[in-house]
Amino acid sequence: MKALEEKIQAEGIVKAGDILKVDHFLNHQIDTAFLDEIGKEFQRLFHQHHITKILTIEASGIAIALATARYFDYIPVVFAKKAKTAQMSDDVYHTSIHSYTHQTTSDVVVAKQYLSCEDHVFIVDDFLANGCAVFGLIDLVCQAHAKVEGIGIVIEKGHQAGGQKLRDQGYHLESLAIIDSMNACTGEIIFRKQKEG
Amino acid sequence: MKALEEKIQAEGIVKAGDILKVDHFLNHQIDTAFLDEIGKEFQRLFHQHHITKILTIEASGIAIALATARYFDYIPVVFAKKAKTAQMSDDVYHTSIHSYTHQTTSDVVVAKQYLSCEDHVFIVDDFLANGCAVFGLIDLVCQAHAKVEGIGIVIEKGHQAGGQKLRDQGYHLESLAIIDSMNACTGEIIFRKQKEG
Repeated sequence: MKALEEKIQAEGIVKAGDILKVDHFLNHQIDTAFLDEIGKEFQRLFHQHHITKILTIEASGIAIALATARYFDYIPVVFAKKAKTAQMSDDVYHTSIHSYTHQTTSDVVVAKQYLSCEDHVFIVDDFLANGCAVFGLIDLVCQAHAKVEGIGIVIEKGHQAGGQKLRDQGYHLESLAIIDSMNACTGEIIFRKQKEG
Repeated sequence: MKALEEKIQAEGIVKAGDILKVDHFLNHQIDTAFLDEIGKEFQRLFHQHHITKILTIEASGIAIALATARYFDYIPVVFAKKAKTAQMSDDVYHTSIHSYTHQTTSDVVVAKQYLSCEDHVFIVDDFLANGCAVFGLIDLVCQAHAKVEGIGIVIEKGHQAGGQKLRDQGYHLESLAIIDSMNACTGEIIFRKQKEG
């Protein structure tokens, strides 16, 4: 998505430790008109799928999921919650997600009543790097015996392994921008060439 | 908002400890079409204000803020973040918010660059009880020398003190549903009568 690459170039900040900050329009302040374009683009890329529900994880994924749902006839959004131990019960599907950025492991839950074997799920998230968050969400969908129809990512770090692993496993994954490399000293970001619609 | 009261009656669950769970359409699973109606209603109630930015707090507020921004010409949303100590710096406005529900105190931050003295801020959130979260957000707006134009709440617990305090201080506060009492044994919820638009 050319407009996204331009936005990342203009407003993203590359930091040491392979970190790209997009707080200006996605992760702290939200450019709501632009987010609408992201939702529209996901619809274009996944319209051939029969999707009944959008699944994401709090907090940054929520806005993306909501903007996308509008373009899929206002289907429900479910966001997985980072759980306190007290929330662990027989009523929830549970998985653990490790964050390499924060060096933490979170327990993540979805209430069983919000994912069923009849659901065709579109997973969305802001970033894909090692894929831990997405594999965690897939795990929750599998526990519910629901079907993963596709995975929509705003920014993929193409030089990390998550994207390749997911594609190798046969998932329909689309990342609106794929970063092949970035340089914290110069701020330079190199995007992978993708075909535009 | 009559439709909201009906939705709470139909889908909300009253629990012991003055807790109302609206996970079915607002706080875990999101009824995205209904959220759109909530955004439209906030626009109707606050259209006379000059608003440049919507401020909320992660995670549950994000979807509400986004749905509302669409009806205010796609103005930016900023969500305050629950901070790790490492995020405390001179670059952020910082406040502490106590949650009576979870019996925790969170450090909450907004990056200074996303709130300025020129901003006219509309604060939105899902619940208002004691008002700790809203007063925390007001504190952040004040630190930025910005102006609070209004406060939009989806569900106010009218039997708790937050709403009255905010109104007494002269804020334009609108809650789409105000609960005067609820009973965890019978599930009964009594709403305060409000005039409809």
